[in-house]
Amino acid sequence: MPSKPKAIVLLSGGLDSSTCLYWAKSKGYAAHALAVSYGQRHLREINAARAVAKAAGAQFTHVTLELPWLATSSLVNKKAKLPAIPLSRIGKEGIPSTYVPGRNLLFASLAASLADSLGAQAIVIGANALDYSGYPDCRPEFYKALRLAAVRGTRFADGGTLKIFTPLINLDKAGIARLARRLKVPLELTWSCYAGGKTPCGVCDSCKLRAAGFDRAGFPDPAL
Amino acid sequence: MPSKPKAIVLLSGGLDSSTCLYWAKSKGYAAHALAVSYGQRHLREINAARAVAKAAGAQFTHVTLELPWLATSSLVNKKAKLPAIPLSRIGKEGIPSTYVPGRNLLFASLAASLADSLGAQAIVIGANALDYSGYPDCRPEFYKALRLAAVRGTRFADGGTLKIFTPLINLDKAGIARLARRLKVPLELTWSCYAGGKTPCGVCDSCKLRAAGFDRAGFPDPAL
Repeated sequence: MPSKPKAIVLLSGGLDSSTCLYWAKSKGYAAHALAVSYGQRHLREINAARAVAKAAGAQFTHVTLELPWLATSSLVNKKAKLPAIPLSRIGKEGIPSTYVPGRNLLFASLAASLADSLGAQAIVIGANALDYSGYPDCRPEFYKALRLAAVRGTRFADGGTLKIFTPLINLDKAGIARLARRLKVPLELTWSCYAGGKTPCGVCDSCKLRAAGFDRAGFPDPAL
Repeated sequence: MPSKPKAIVLLSGGLDSSTCLYWAKSKGYAAHALAVSYGQRHLREINAARAVAKAAGAQFTHVTLELPWLATSSLVNKKAKLPAIPLSRIGKEGIPSTYVPGRNLLFASLAASLADSLGAQAIVIGANALDYSGYPDCRPEFYKALRLAAVRGTRFADGGTLKIFTPLINLDKAGIARLARRLKVPLELTWSCYAGGKTPCGVCDSCKLRAAGFDRAGFPDPAL
């Protein structure tokens, strides 16, 4: 029996990326989870990522980026105040202070480098362009350009296949919650809150988007 | 007087990237040098980069990537043998063992993130498609795709200008050596050798390409 093709899944340990990990498994890939620390407030999410990868039977690699300039983001700078705006305004007030400059470009480059090194055939990223926070690197046109750069900037330029999947890009949070349930994602292990306390804060953009998603999907969030 | 536009220059401390730094200055940019350690054999090049940046009056940022999978490259894995093949075969035997998976994609993503954070308008990369070692991420078509990904994956997606310059891409090493002399690059501070001894080894691909360049340019290498 030929071995399964490998897929690198960027895994934060939140709802979206955990759903991507199980999506990759459901598509027949041997999933290799890549978690990246970059000084974000919630190291707790790395522990969630590790637990989700273990539950999925996926390989797990964790790397740390120490990039001093990322402190411009309120997600990294612990002295900055996290935004707490009404749900209806999220994603509509320009790029929020939680934006990390070029984050998904960096993450995808790390994944492409790992894919090149392992001979993986796919990268899976949980970007989402609907219920999102207004980040430029969550838009479909970015991923189209990214694929070409990732292929041309690696061994895949000379042959082989490298796909970039963003299976959630056109789903709303309710759709993601439903997909997660269908794929049997261990939702109780996931962590989406930006604040990183013992329990989700309930007021950051990420908590609000997640709560509204489960609300519309019509079933309770197993992580609460 | 309006302040100069900023350019992020990826600086390894070698001939090519040092020439790029002085090229950016000559084009009216306030240069910000970015040096990246990734476990390469020659930490010595970081010291060269710092010295060249200082001589150019450029800001200098040094970051370290600890990516365990890069050990597949003989440039990173200290137990691997560096290739030493005849000059005429360099770049003609497929991708060499010194290839670091997705290196320039990673480097450019770091530069794009820094550019996004600082509001810089340009990224300068010393890639070179002629006298090169056969790396896929040194080809012009990669940089075209990269620019689109870098713009779409950052704040520049919503406006502003981000250029990616590869001023050496169509020069041979002799041409680079001549350009470096014209731009008054402090060549005696630069370091190109892959091996990282006290003096350049003279037998690695990088030493051979550099020596042949100065030879054809018709003047001695001030670093020797």
